[in-house]
Amino acid sequence: MTRPAEVKSPWLSTAERAAERETKREAVLRTAVHFFNTRGFHSTSLNDVAAALEVTKPTIYHYFSSKDEILFECVRLGLEAIRDAGDQARERGGSGRDQLEALMLEYALVMTRDFGICVSRTSDDQLAPASRDRFRALKREINDSLQATIQAGMDDASLRPGDARIAAFTVAGALNWIARWYRPDGGMSAEEVTRGVVHTLLSGLTP
Amino acid sequence: MTRPAEVKSPWLSTAERAAERETKREAVLRTAVHFFNTRGFHSTSLNDVAAALEVTKPTIYHYFSSKDEILFECVRLGLEAIRDAGDQARERGGSGRDQLEALMLEYALVMTRDFGICVSRTSDDQLAPASRDRFRALKREINDSLQATIQAGMDDASLRPGDARIAAFTVAGALNWIARWYRPDGGMSAEEVTRGVVHTLLSGLTP
Repeated sequence: MTRPAEVKSPWLSTAERAAERETKREAVLRTAVHFFNTRGFHSTSLNDVAAALEVTKPTIYHYFSSKDEILFECVRLGLEAIRDAGDQARERGGSGRDQLEALMLEYALVMTRDFGICVSRTSDDQLAPASRDRFRALKREINDSLQATIQAGMDDASLRPGDARIAAFTVAGALNWIARWYRPDGGMSAEEVTRGVVHTLLSGLTP
Repeated sequence: MTRPAEVKSPWLSTAERAAERETKREAVLRTAVHFFNTRGFHSTSLNDVAAALEVTKPTIYHYFSSKDEILFECVRLGLEAIRDAGDQARERGGSGRDQLEALMLEYALVMTRDFGICVSRTSDDQLAPASRDRFRALKREINDSLQATIQAGMDDASLRPGDARIAAFTVAGALNWIARWYRPDGGMSAEEVTRGVVHTLLSGLTP
């Protein structure tokens, strides 16, 4: 059965409903991550998140089963952004050094943004056991990707030979730390900070 | 009044009592920091600490007023060890680069040990407000010292010119991160890991 062309259905299409659901889900996550980062996870209640969005707590529960699930989704978004940075760097090709630089610049930028900051502030023991295992697996995947990119650069001589595992942890520490000290109102843009840290890691401190 | 030379007092002298008190206090901190690092601060009770030392909880309260005070003392010991590393590096003299290398090697070693690990795992919001302010002040002091050492090296041209603030945060992140990934049973000694990270920071990743 088709409806007359002049009658527009006042109901949303399936695709529109899915898009609206996604928009609402994301608004919950963006609001929650802001509270987690500024007040801490334990000090944030779902009532705070609901009040900020001018809805009730049951509305939040329509999209997420628990505060733990919301925290996990926030760190997952941050970690997936870092993982995507690695995939994109590999797709662009170039030397190991070129790929590492592209990966580090994007990784560093993620750490200046809310979901990246949430990754840096969340410790394993804040998550429920099932989420914790997925959190650790994602972190391991990112570390393996970083280490493999460094190893590729050492193998093609575009990076200084050395222990790729130690180099990967040195890089990860410096990049993750950005989330702890970078302030958008601190006089430097996220891009300036990002380039500064990546340059320090690539070139070292000695002349 | 002096006692006959042949009679040794069975009571401890004032100095001996102070030393004994210090030994007991330290045993509480070393036991507590081990539980905090392996189980998390929130999951550790003072009953656990007392039981491990085969005393009762009131005995612990003879030395510390609260679990918060114990956590603060643990992070204070870690932070003071890093601060002392900076003081020693400056006293030894040499170029800014020499002082920075000495500081970083010792800072990195602290981060492989229990009190350093506790510093890395403790976030501001786990401490009571008064302790939090002292924790932040100590961290700021260490950051200022690291930045001043890097600036001195840039000024005497023993380090590559650049932004000493960004370089200090890059170094601090890489060193603090050691506490998150170093495992004593991971096949590398603390000294090997320490030298590897410091070498990466000084020499950079590019040839």
